[in-house]
Amino acid sequence: MELDEINPNVLNVKPSAMRKFDHDISSDPDIIKLTLGEPNFDVPDHIKKAAIEAINTNCSHYPYYWGFQDLREAASTYYRDKFGYHYSADEIVVSVGATEALASTVKTLFKPGDAVIIPTPAYPLYEALMTLNQIKTIFVDTSDSGFVLTPEKIQKAVDDHPDLAVKGLILTDPNNPTGVAYTEAQIAALAPVLKQNKIWVISDEIYGELTYGQKHYTISKLLPEQTIVTNGLSKSHAMTGWRLGFVFGPHPFIDEIAKTHQFTVTAAASLVQYAATEALTHGQNDAAVMKKEYLKRRDFVVQNMSEAGFDVVHPGGAFYVFAKIPASLQMDSWQFVKTLAKDYHIGLMPGDPFGDNEYIRISYAASDDALAAAMKAVKQMVKDKNTVADRA
Amino acid sequence: MELDEINPNVLNVKPSAMRKFDHDISSDPDIIKLTLGEPNFDVPDHIKKAAIEAINTNCSHYPYYWGFQDLREAASTYYRDKFGYHYSADEIVVSVGATEALASTVKTLFKPGDAVIIPTPAYPLYEALMTLNQIKTIFVDTSDSGFVLTPEKIQKAVDDHPDLAVKGLILTDPNNPTGVAYTEAQIAALAPVLKQNKIWVISDEIYGELTYGQKHYTISKLLPEQTIVTNGLSKSHAMTGWRLGFVFGPHPFIDEIAKTHQFTVTAAASLVQYAATEALTHGQNDAAVMKKEYLKRRDFVVQNMSEAGFDVVHPGGAFYVFAKIPASLQMDSWQFVKTLAKDYHIGLMPGDPFGDNEYIRISYAASDDALAAAMKAVKQMVKDKNTVADRA
Repeated sequence: MELDEINPNVLNVKPSAMRKFDHDISSDPDIIKLTLGEPNFDVPDHIKKAAIEAINTNCSHYPYYWGFQDLREAASTYYRDKFGYHYSADEIVVSVGATEALASTVKTLFKPGDAVIIPTPAYPLYEALMTLNQIKTIFVDTSDSGFVLTPEKIQKAVDDHPDLAVKGLILTDPNNPTGVAYTEAQIAALAPVLKQNKIWVISDEIYGELTYGQKHYTISKLLPEQTIVTNGLSKSHAMTGWRLGFVFGPHPFIDEIAKTHQFTVTAAASLVQYAATEALTHGQNDAAVMKKEYLKRRDFVVQNMSEAGFDVVHPGGAFYVFAKIPASLQMDSWQFVKTLAKDYHIGLMPGDPFGDNEYIRISYAASDDALAAAMKAVKQMVKDKNTVADRA
Repeated sequence: MELDEINPNVLNVKPSAMRKFDHDISSDPDIIKLTLGEPNFDVPDHIKKAAIEAINTNCSHYPYYWGFQDLREAASTYYRDKFGYHYSADEIVVSVGATEALASTVKTLFKPGDAVIIPTPAYPLYEALMTLNQIKTIFVDTSDSGFVLTPEKIQKAVDDHPDLAVKGLILTDPNNPTGVAYTEAQIAALAPVLKQNKIWVISDEIYGELTYGQKHYTISKLLPEQTIVTNGLSKSHAMTGWRLGFVFGPHPFIDEIAKTHQFTVTAAASLVQYAATEALTHGQNDAAVMKKEYLKRRDFVVQNMSEAGFDVVHPGGAFYVFAKIPASLQMDSWQFVKTLAKDYHIGLMPGDPFGDNEYIRISYAASDDALAAAMKAVKQMVKDKNTVADRA
């Protein structure tokens, strides 16, 4: 078989450099990884118990493709109480994780040729979805505004591309990879320019429960008629490998995405849906114990990375620290993480796949021991490299 | 929000009339349904036990997106032993059920504008996937050749469409909705014309284990370089709601579909992958007990439907009987199933969504009691309608 027999839109998608790097370094038995966005917590016991109950009671048959009615009602209540979402059960589709929520949303809302604004640095999935669906991307660098998107930047992106139909914006709040959590004022500032330009927002709020010292504020409150929210249980309930997400949106969008969803995956696994209903009914505080730990770890990592000479944007949410490699090292992000993995057996993510090659991303959803070892190694590497540089 | 803000390719997809009809009639508390392709068996105990073990051992984190290595190796062996598949673990991607296997395959192999042959009657998912991806469909009616596709029909489809780039064929064997299982000779007859015209085969073999009195024969043996096989555990291990499927194909296709898959769903649920490894390692005979029951039920349904005046193609596989409504009733398939549901509380599938409005589909993956009640009702309805017609 020849490559040119394959859909060029698929060929044009870069494979995930993140997952590949993570996979490659995993062959080192001594590696300590702070790479993937993966809580080191286990699924809370009451949810595991529910899943076992689902298995024992043979909840193994096809669920209705929108998702169990119970689960969609539980999601309606849970997210209303948590963040003020206004969605009723019939404005919610249960997806196979947030990835499928995003993939089906992009596919349903945009047509080939539309243009979408992606503030960078950004989670690489977004660009891949645009390429797969022949949607044009307008990358907007936020590194000079504290990694916060501003109304001016949105307007400039529109003005700079008079030839493009700018139809959408991907907003990730709290942000991956920077950990930035938008304030209510920062979100409110974006609404008028989005409304005026009729730009749809895909609001990826998967880290919404993980904010520190501030409450997550959803743009769907301000722009209900042009926002699609994606969320899920991977981070809030440490259910990454269970693949359970949600799409929230107005009619008729939600009716249309239900078709895309159905013809892509049929439905999320029924036993997982059953467990998710338990998570959203009795698991309102599941994230609290994790957050307490994350907060300690965040402060530990921020302090150590600063001590090691990295510029760090103070992260208000998620479980990432995005840190600028000291200029003295004269290394880009790939050089840094490859050296750190090879010589110090610590795995971090390069900033390059997110769109900024001067930074590295540290996931602190890891054990205290792992974080301590990583910080020690980073400091040692900086010291070693600076020593070499001094000698030269 | 207006409909014209939505991707027209999604708008053009018809919602699943099957699932909607099934959902609608479910509100009748007395309904007995033989509608969906859903085994009435439960997941075998050893697989349930493995899933519980996965939960208890916190197998809840991200699996590598191709799927667990163990599972892909187990699939390589299992399907080699069962059907003679020749695929090694690195030519297999684990998908979210056969639906995602098909969705990602169509997306990866074909580009907008390509044309694909779909023999009818056919599972409606195929047409939806073509519409979603702007692929042209050439429907080839098989009702005049015993619902078996022939090389002549393929060649005619190509010759009749000189303006189209005919790049693929969807082959469903055993077939849904007809229950037809191709013989080795029938499959062998197709290979030369497919090779000559360089037509890729997407071979949907989800019912491969459910054949009666003959062994499933896979076209991938004859056309390894232009076949993609999709399969899964929904039917063989009664795991419909667990969503676990596979794509088998040559390099570089398999490397490219891994990207499509990853950016659509990330991965199949890790606990389900763990259970699936058990299914394929120790569950070689799980389908045997089901098949024994299905065979009895098939004969029961075929006999009763024939007695009721329906023309039935003898089904060699799957768990469906596709039956032609007696002309004396003067009803199309929707009229028939709606009347049967409303007045007799029995749910059957109309043939129309599969592409043949003169037929109905009966799923005999149901209890003996349900089947007996259904056959009684069908006979009663035919009698009632013929009596009315006689009086008129």
